[in-house]
Amino acid sequence: MRIDLNADMGESFGPWPMGADDVLLGFVTSANIACGFHAGDPDVMAKAMGTAVRNGVGIGAHPGFPDLQGFGRRRMDVPPATLANLVRYQLGAAQGMAKAAGGQVRHLKLHGALGNMTAEDEELARLCYDAALSIDPDIIVMVIAATAQERAARALGCAWAGEIFADRAYNDDATLVDRRHPGAVIHDPAIAGPRIAQMVKERAIITENGKRIETEIDTICLHGDTAEAVEIARSVRAALEAEAIEIHTLDGRR
Amino acid sequence: MRIDLNADMGESFGPWPMGADDVLLGFVTSANIACGFHAGDPDVMAKAMGTAVRNGVGIGAHPGFPDLQGFGRRRMDVPPATLANLVRYQLGAAQGMAKAAGGQVRHLKLHGALGNMTAEDEELARLCYDAALSIDPDIIVMVIAATAQERAARALGCAWAGEIFADRAYNDDATLVDRRHPGAVIHDPAIAGPRIAQMVKERAIITENGKRIETEIDTICLHGDTAEAVEIARSVRAALEAEAIEIHTLDGRR
Amino acid sequence: MRIDLNADMGESFGPWPMGADDVLLGFVTSANIACGFHAGDPDVMAKAMGTAVRNGVGIGAHPGFPDLQGFGRRRMDVPPATLANLVRYQLGAAQGMAKAAGGQVRHLKLHGALGNMTAEDEELARLCYDAALSIDPDIIVMVIAATAQERAARALGCAWAGEIFADRAYNDDATLVDRRHPGAVIHDPAIAGPRIAQMVKERAIITENGKRIETEIDTICLHGDTAEAVEIARSVRAALEAEAIEIHTLDGRR
Amino acid sequence: MRIDLNADMGESFGPWPMGADDVLLGFVTSANIACGFHAGDPDVMAKAMGTAVRNGVGIGAHPGFPDLQGFGRRRMDVPPATLANLVRYQLGAAQGMAKAAGGQVRHLKLHGALGNMTAEDEELARLCYDAALSIDPDIIVMVIAATAQERAARALGCAWAGEIFADRAYNDDATLVDRRHPGAVIHDPAIAGPRIAQMVKERAIITENGKRIETEIDTICLHGDTAEAVEIARSVRAALEAEAIEIHTLDGRR
Repeated sequence: MRIDLNADMGESFGPWPMGADDVLLGFVTSANIACGFHAGDPDVMAKAMGTAVRNGVGIGAHPGFPDLQGFGRRRMDVPPATLANLVRYQLGAAQGMAKAAGGQVRHLKLHGALGNMTAEDEELARLCYDAALSIDPDIIVMVIAATAQERAARALGCAWAGEIFADRAYNDDATLVDRRHPGAVIHDPAIAGPRIAQMVKERAIITENGKRIETEIDTICLHGDTAEAVEIARSVRAALEAEAIEIHTLDGRR
Repeated sequence: MRIDLNADMGESFGPWPMGADDVLLGFVTSANIACGFHAGDPDVMAKAMGTAVRNGVGIGAHPGFPDLQGFGRRRMDVPPATLANLVRYQLGAAQGMAKAAGGQVRHLKLHGALGNMTAEDEELARLCYDAALSIDPDIIVMVIAATAQERAARALGCAWAGEIFADRAYNDDATLVDRRHPGAVIHDPAIAGPRIAQMVKERAIITENGKRIETEIDTICLHGDTAEAVEIARSVRAALEAEAIEIHTLDGRR
Repeated sequence: MRIDLNADMGESFGPWPMGADDVLLGFVTSANIACGFHAGDPDVMAKAMGTAVRNGVGIGAHPGFPDLQGFGRRRMDVPPATLANLVRYQLGAAQGMAKAAGGQVRHLKLHGALGNMTAEDEELARLCYDAALSIDPDIIVMVIAATAQERAARALGCAWAGEIFADRAYNDDATLVDRRHPGAVIHDPAIAGPRIAQMVKERAIITENGKRIETEIDTICLHGDTAEAVEIARSVRAALEAEAIEIHTLDGRR
Repeated sequence: MRIDLNADMGESFGPWPMGADDVLLGFVTSANIACGFHAGDPDVMAKAMGTAVRNGVGIGAHPGFPDLQGFGRRRMDVPPATLANLVRYQLGAAQGMAKAAGGQVRHLKLHGALGNMTAEDEELARLCYDAALSIDPDIIVMVIAATAQERAARALGCAWAGEIFADRAYNDDATLVDRRHPGAVIHDPAIAGPRIAQMVKERAIITENGKRIETEIDTICLHGDTAEAVEIARSVRAALEAEAIEIHTLDGRR
């Protein structure tokens, strides 16, 4: 039994730092690197890619909407063909930067509002994944487990990996509990680690109500911008290791 | 004896058209496609790449400064490492878009102020070309003949192609006559074609004063945004064909 | 009886021209000038403002979403406070440019997707208008007649002007017929002019089905980017003058 | 005898915070607020303006080059007319945001590379200041003391204020010692405060070599992004108060 740990990186821009990439690199096996549209710039990408390569961390392209001020978190009503080209352009740029850094892009994860919209809409997810596959047919698509993203990847027959979140509570339909709801975000490292280890072991999302939703779990999303997040990352790693679950970069399933 | 004809394409942006790509595709064998920083967007690139592939025209990445309002024509004092990453990012994006369109990027040409600055500064040219080669060691670098760009390409030992301009007069040091000077731009198709054919045949730039500067001439830059430019393109093609010079996409020399 | 004629202007950007501002200035009494977020840049604004001042045409700020590639036509899910600040920023910039050109901003019209969203949502319209009024309490808000925009302006008690479109057919609920529907756009100048003159005279929108919707009509929106549009503008002016309706820049009603 | 203390504020962008505006507001009497081209966005501006108004701190527009990635610190070869319009646009936007926040823009300070270029080139400085005066003839231009900026303001006959830097050493020609030179930046609060108080009292810049350059000193530039900077701000205030120099927002001299 093995599992990948992923986190968003390379989210600085120009003079503005964001995140704690150096700390996170001690915990993760995959990095989702912003591609310049919602965050990141070519210098930030070069640095993030280089660090990932040196640490043996798998590189992922993390495309988002062209909306720097909104950090790609604001939904935009972009026509499908434009959406496909946005994904292609950002993936291509990421591949170039990765190559120059001595690595390669292994996976794709959709960022922010683009991630949310494709988790709800299989056709949209399929469009974006298909766009990525037109550039790299072997790329591993990282999907939010048990959502339209997963259905799209299965329908396309491409390599994919199911993702759950280390610090978020789940509703009984496998969606995330709304952040405004108490208990939506898990702040206690003592709870986060064992909870995730249990889900991985049982191959199921365990909801807030205790319901088990069987699903493929291949990667755990960690956040890294707070001191607390580092404690949660530590707790998750420790709990997984205690269960003898190997922490290993993505392989992708089909 | 063979020669390539190139032109800038894909310089529209969003709702704003620019150029006459469809007309130019009847004349050229290489297209320099803008990469989204000074012009072009992912949709424009997709369209330009697709059209180039369907017409058997060689695709080039045409990176420029991140300056849409200034169309990449305003010099920017960008640190060398940043410059290298700008070239990498744009080349990578172009490669991705080309792949998705069923083609590939064969050459690189630097746009606007970035082109002018590197034609004057060998170190800067080398930095940019080296950045491109870090992504594709086989890419053909299109250099302005007899400038620092050519010296940089020779020093790097990479594949390159020397370029002259169909409609511009030359000074005795192989630089272009300033546009503000009368006679700087050649408007008469009856002059443009035979003049270019002579230069190609003689393997030399012939300056305004009649001086011959021996140099490798592999490609002719055409402009395509005016009715006159189309007449010049037509005249250049006719004159080359009259001299039995084969018009053929870039091979690159070393 | 008097009426204003308005058109969008200053929609060029950097090297990319758009529209035929010089032609339109012969027909209109108000210009809606883009403010740099969806189109326009400071140079384009300066030129458009200067021309408007010299032609005695009323200047309007025409703010839109921060989306150059999408020309402000793509809906964006921007939080209310951010929307208010977008309007304020763009109106302030327009006021500065107008002042420097020897004029002043007299009216505000919301562009593209922002216009469409506020025509459907009174609260959103009120938010945007209130933002503008926080900078200039006397500004005239140009509203799409008989929509949520008009209701918002009435509720705020500010100066406003009701707008209809010279070349668009109307549904029985006063919304525009979808562009994909045949007959949605009126292409025949011989029809457009008399139809508009009748609406103005009768103080009512006359729908595709012949229904009369009584409403205040203070300004007619002309488009100017096609040869046909100029003929329609000419026809509208002629028909209004034939009915002795004075063509005069906006006053604003309360 | 009175003096103003100024600092740059509102330099966050979208999700990226910068600076410690809340801390600085306890020390300064004038805030130079970024206008969205090199930093700041409409939300950031609204917040910074509002805080300045509530704290009785004078608001300044701080326009820069349109270069977010480079934070306006990279020189750009922008034509003069374009430069003037950049200043106008940003000042207008700042005025709008200030009005909405219940305040007004009292001064103008040029940011980054635009500041450096105008400190060296009187004609360029005059162009930028003239552009600002075309919108507000009473605006106070904040000039780097004893540079081309000051000469430009004097030549224009506009209201101006001479500025020195709290933590930077001076060359004998009144330029700042290059940051790469040891001692260029003053890190010791115990030195910074008394040094500045002496300059203000003596109405002279005192250079690294001890040379006195007589000049009008109306405002002291503080930096606020480091813990050290806060200590320096504290030291400067204390030293000025010890000399009974009144700390008071800008009046502007002519």
